Amino acid sequence: MTEPQVEIKLFSASTPLNDAVLRTLAHLPTRSLGLLVADEFWCRLSDADFMRIAVLLAEKSYIEGGCPIGAVIIDNASRRIVGKGHNTLVQESHPYNHGETAAIRDAGRLDFSQTTLFTSLSPCNICTALLINRGFNRVVVGDVSSAGGNEQTLSNHGVTVKVLEDSKGVALYQQFRREQPELEREDWLGLRQNKD
Amino acid sequence: MTEPQVEIKLFSASTPLNDAVLRTLAHLPTRSLGLLVADEFWCRLSDADFMRIAVLLAEKSYIEGGCPIGAVIIDNASRRIVGKGHNTLVQESHPYNHGETAAIRDAGRLDFSQTTLFTSLSPCNICTALLINRGFNRVVVGDVSSAGGNEQTLSNHGVTVKVLEDSKGVALYQQFRREQPELEREDWLGLRQNKD
Repeated sequence: MTEPQVEIKLFSASTPLNDAVLRTLAHLPTRSLGLLVADEFWCRLSDADFMRIAVLLAEKSYIEGGCPIGAVIIDNASRRIVGKGHNTLVQESHPYNHGETAAIRDAGRLDFSQTTLFTSLSPCNICTALLINRGFNRVVVGDVSSAGGNEQTLSNHGVTVKVLEDSKGVALYQQFRREQPELEREDWLGLRQNKD
Repeated sequence: MTEPQVEIKLFSASTPLNDAVLRTLAHLPTRSLGLLVADEFWCRLSDADFMRIAVLLAEKSYIEGGCPIGAVIIDNASRRIVGKGHNTLVQESHPYNHGETAAIRDAGRLDFSQTTLFTSLSPCNICTALLINRGFNRVVVGDVSSAGGNEQTLSNHGVTVKVLEDSKGVALYQQFRREQPELEREDWLGLRQNKD
């Protein structure tokens, strides 16, 4: 199937990089981005910009009543977004769909050794095993103040790790933790009664 | 919502336990089982019967062109199936939906410390982390001849592990491995080029 010619794209070389623009990208389906975003746009986005998109996905989840954790995967060469998502424990009654698992599910069958994953929160044990097992090249972590510890494990397995905290993302997660401690616990440990 | 009264159920105290019956259970949506299966039926199923259902889910996936790995989760007290599924790498282009992740996604937000998971194949590192993290009480493994090693890890983390090989399940997985070695490799390690 040939892609239709689109003359003017909303996301171009001259589009300003602000939260309104990045939030729209966060909400658009990944499959739509190829048609709507010019190649030149992607090259302008810094790691901090992609982390903002991950945090704006966390914001989307928070507004839906869910856990505010988001993630974005980009192709290292073109900087295009190839997968993204957020936690859906509440929204899909999904017991382990964290930011990372959601983004990887969205990306589908890719060679992740050519990609970088941005996560708004330090990865849990499950997502750490998944990132190692799928051979991710690089992981950027947006909040090690609220949780952490698996950065070293990733690094030990050959994944390049960069900590790049997003202060609004850290504040949002801390707010969620204060408001919904039981939901946060379920997200990390499940509903089990007898273990920790 | 009150459950409608159903006088006669196909799966009852006198239903024979053969592959035709167990295969039908494997294919039915989990949410439908409460209406179609009598409580007395579940108590008659042995661990080997539940493993057969996991293998018949693997068979379903194989027939669909996918990786033949299935899993079933039961409530320990009632022996009812509360979740089940099979690998969907091919069917959903899903990079980590293994038997175990599929069954846990199907089960939703449960206290897994009261459940047993039956998997037709020894769990990978991702699924092992998930089983430990969600606090599973017991895991029954149907094939340690084709893969293995994480049984000890599960056991070290307080999960009761039982190996109960299903010879037809082992034969099906070996057939798949011979027929589709590249697909098997992708399922275990992803599509990455440069690492192992």
